[in-house]
Amino acid sequence: MTEASSDSNDSFHVFDTTLRDGAQREGINLTVADKLNIARYLDEFGVGFIEGGWPGANPRDTEFFARAAAELDLQHAQLVAFGATRRAGGSAADDPQLAALVNSGAPVITLVAKSHDRHVELALRTTLDENLAMVRDSVSYLRSQGRRVFIDCEHFFDGYKANRDYALAVVRAAHEAGADVVVLCDTNGGMLPAGVHEIVADVLATTGARLGIHAQDDTGCAVANSLAAVDAGATHVQCTANGYGERVGNANLFPVVGALEIKYGMKVLPEGRLAEMTRISHAIAEVVNLAPSTHQPYVGVSAFAHKAGLHASAIKVDPDLYQHIDPERVGNTMRMLVSDMAGRASVELKGKELGYDLSADRDLVGRVVAKVKEQENLGYTYEAADASFELLLRDEVRGGRERFFTLESWRTISEQQAGNGNGGGESAGNEATVKLWAKGERRIATGEGNGPVDALDRALRAALEGIYPQLAKMELVDYKVRILEGQHGTGSKTRVLIESTDGTTTWSTVGVADNVIAASWRALEDAYTYGLIRAGLDPQE
Amino acid sequence: MTEASSDSNDSFHVFDTTLRDGAQREGINLTVADKLNIARYLDEFGVGFIEGGWPGANPRDTEFFARAAAELDLQHAQLVAFGATRRAGGSAADDPQLAALVNSGAPVITLVAKSHDRHVELALRTTLDENLAMVRDSVSYLRSQGRRVFIDCEHFFDGYKANRDYALAVVRAAHEAGADVVVLCDTNGGMLPAGVHEIVADVLATTGARLGIHAQDDTGCAVANSLAAVDAGATHVQCTANGYGERVGNANLFPVVGALEIKYGMKVLPEGRLAEMTRISHAIAEVVNLAPSTHQPYVGVSAFAHKAGLHASAIKVDPDLYQHIDPERVGNTMRMLVSDMAGRASVELKGKELGYDLSADRDLVGRVVAKVKEQENLGYTYEAADASFELLLRDEVRGGRERFFTLESWRTISEQQAGNGNGGGESAGNEATVKLWAKGERRIATGEGNGPVDALDRALRAALEGIYPQLAKMELVDYKVRILEGQHGTGSKTRVLIESTDGTTTWSTVGVADNVIAASWRALEDAYTYGLIRAGLDPQE
Repeated sequence: MTEASSDSNDSFHVFDTTLRDGAQREGINLTVADKLNIARYLDEFGVGFIEGGWPGANPRDTEFFARAAAELDLQHAQLVAFGATRRAGGSAADDPQLAALVNSGAPVITLVAKSHDRHVELALRTTLDENLAMVRDSVSYLRSQGRRVFIDCEHFFDGYKANRDYALAVVRAAHEAGADVVVLCDTNGGMLPAGVHEIVADVLATTGARLGIHAQDDTGCAVANSLAAVDAGATHVQCTANGYGERVGNANLFPVVGALEIKYGMKVLPEGRLAEMTRISHAIAEVVNLAPSTHQPYVGVSAFAHKAGLHASAIKVDPDLYQHIDPERVGNTMRMLVSDMAGRASVELKGKELGYDLSADRDLVGRVVAKVKEQENLGYTYEAADASFELLLRDEVRGGRERFFTLESWRTISEQQAGNGNGGGESAGNEATVKLWAKGERRIATGEGNGPVDALDRALRAALEGIYPQLAKMELVDYKVRILEGQHGTGSKTRVLIESTDGTTTWSTVGVADNVIAASWRALEDAYTYGLIRAGLDPQE
Repeated sequence: MTEASSDSNDSFHVFDTTLRDGAQREGINLTVADKLNIARYLDEFGVGFIEGGWPGANPRDTEFFARAAAELDLQHAQLVAFGATRRAGGSAADDPQLAALVNSGAPVITLVAKSHDRHVELALRTTLDENLAMVRDSVSYLRSQGRRVFIDCEHFFDGYKANRDYALAVVRAAHEAGADVVVLCDTNGGMLPAGVHEIVADVLATTGARLGIHAQDDTGCAVANSLAAVDAGATHVQCTANGYGERVGNANLFPVVGALEIKYGMKVLPEGRLAEMTRISHAIAEVVNLAPSTHQPYVGVSAFAHKAGLHASAIKVDPDLYQHIDPERVGNTMRMLVSDMAGRASVELKGKELGYDLSADRDLVGRVVAKVKEQENLGYTYEAADASFELLLRDEVRGGRERFFTLESWRTISEQQAGNGNGGGESAGNEATVKLWAKGERRIATGEGNGPVDALDRALRAALEGIYPQLAKMELVDYKVRILEGQHGTGSKTRVLIESTDGTTTWSTVGVADNVIAASWRALEDAYTYGLIRAGLDPQE
């Protein structure tokens, strides 16, 4: 593990706990490989500290630290091991949990300590004095082993409100024993910014310790609470990528860093990394296998998407009129949404975004707006399917639907035979047959796959590949299904979004129908049509 | 339209703009019926004002106000029409847009006015003085028509920073002409709470007008910005349900009201309505046809869901140890998550939640934990599929999988014939055949449906209905599909979540497989098995 590079500044800490606290989010289940991948992205983004997990307590985390030592080549961040103060009534030097933290090899260790008297009594079941000794002994011991130590004062704000003297005593005990940073944690997430500011200011004035903030988002104020703490003198913020965490989640790394860099003018990231924020947010969501939140500040796909017709008209004059920053600063882009709320200005701007100058043809723009509204009433959405919108636009420009092939019929068959109960006989199969016309020829092809849509895709490609060799480098890379009007279970409309690539660019298409296979057919048809247009072919029909 | 009831207090305004600003969220497309439904839910929740849209400018909104007059029987809220100041160079009395606002019949009208000099010049293309006259004339005119008027000062904070004198002049013009509330809008969403506080305090001290706040969430601080404005003296907050809105979104009604009622101790809702918050949040998401955000503060399904083993251990002692409020106060419930992060404590608590006392059998708990981890590695998640988890638990308790029927095989066939291009010949069909054994009998049944899964469901029911008449009152009510590992398009694992009901309660089951049909089969199998157990039957095999 590399030490932090010499140009890193220790005066302000961006401390990421995605791998430890973030992993406590409902729906996340990280392998060790996932954790190593996320660590690389976090390091690339430029956080100062990466809290990797609880070695010793979680076997997967023990493995993470072992593999990190061999495989992670951190350029900027320092790895942190998380754990707890020694066992009540025991000794730090003999504590196996503390030993595991040391053995992890992490240069920095964060210990969680109780700082709320009630938790000491009910959860730890020990005395207030013993808890202070646990803090002092554990910090001193780890310092004696050459580790840098941070202390997470769990439930600090609630503890301060219940028993200010005791909460401050915990801070002092940690500080005096050698903890570099004492992190005040709003563990239950109930604080609001004004209260955070007041308490952090008091703790700083009273103890003189270097303070950090760890905010949870239960009141919807985690980002603001983190900033309030910084305003009051904290110089260490704990966050998670995309705000992942227990219950509602943690303070989201991206709007916190966005505020510090852009609004406060602080340099908390290495030069140039802010512009990587959108890419890294999405990359981490990909590893975690959660759909990226479309409406996240700064990095969400909707963050700079403009819908209201009046906004579009103003943006034609100057994008700054409706954006608080230039989206490029965080690696995002402005998008014009075409919807029934869109007016001509939106369609013109969207057309321009796609490379078509529609400003001279008012009738055309009107027809496109009408067609979009009609399709949206059927369940289509073009907001995440630019290629389907472009095909709609081209159809109106050229006065007719462009086709490279005409469907005659498709059919899919899926089946499963249950096993005989003795481990034999189980089988499953998915097959599709497509019949179509292309370049004057009738083609019939059958494909097999993991499922009916996979089989249909293969059958379609098989039917076309001899005629359109350009298809060979096209590939489906993402596939989303959304059931519309879910109140009636399997009888609803289904919308499918497909993302395809030719190896250089990607494009998205949409299909809506009564069921997932028919909807997928429509999205596939658009995907291949668009792909062939991109490959430079002219449709012939 | 009913006037606000006499027990309503005008001293603090909860002003909802879901139907106007919220509708500008990417992905929302509301019919007039949707808007009326949402208005009923908002009134039920107890907001003071419901901004319904822009009559005259949006035909759908004109229709909304017309139908609202006849069909909406508001018990608590007042309806508000939104519009803009008169046209530059025109007169208020002749302005057709203002006339449409009056004709809507809404007792309250909100006018958006430019308060940023640059916007007056570039977007309105008029002079600063004319803009002030537009504000004065429009407000006076509407007051003369007997309407209560609020003014939305668009881009106020940016305008104040660019030209404080002019921004304040707009506030004064509105206030002196008779606007009851001057709402300061952070239209581009770039503000942070400390800045909002400072500016609101200055405007209040300088103008003495009654102030409101309208915050957008581009920095992730809309809730905190709203509270900061209240701290500085604002007595009117504009929010949207679930934070829906343009770009990232608006200040979320639910955490704002949650903070005011629970943390500030204010009574901004009628008695008893806070406990309806979770239900109403989800109901509005249903109407809007967007999946409710699982991680929303207070109302999200994950808001009080506990995953970490240590948290579960403490919660066994006292739930307050890890929750900032009792979830029942907002109509939510605590949930224990069973996952590989869960330990025995989580499984015990989950079992208890489902009605099984596992505390005496440590081996059983260990087997369940192991089985959950194994299934989760395959892609299963029990976090939203309590019935599937309960079946897993029962299998371990009883030492074997309980079955009401044993599958022999299933098959689905889907097909589509394209039309002949002259409007004829197009057809589509979906058919499934199921062969199974139940109560010693072999059954074969075929079903037809809107799609392969619908057909499979009908075939399964047809195969079982003679044998298990209890199935007749069971129905699928929701169906979600999630493609896991989306990088490889249609070849990925698919997870299906099904929600079923017997008319009294609902339950959720999960199925994972290579494709959506096979995954749906597994979720259906669990759904009917669980339903029959609920109906009091004992499985026989």
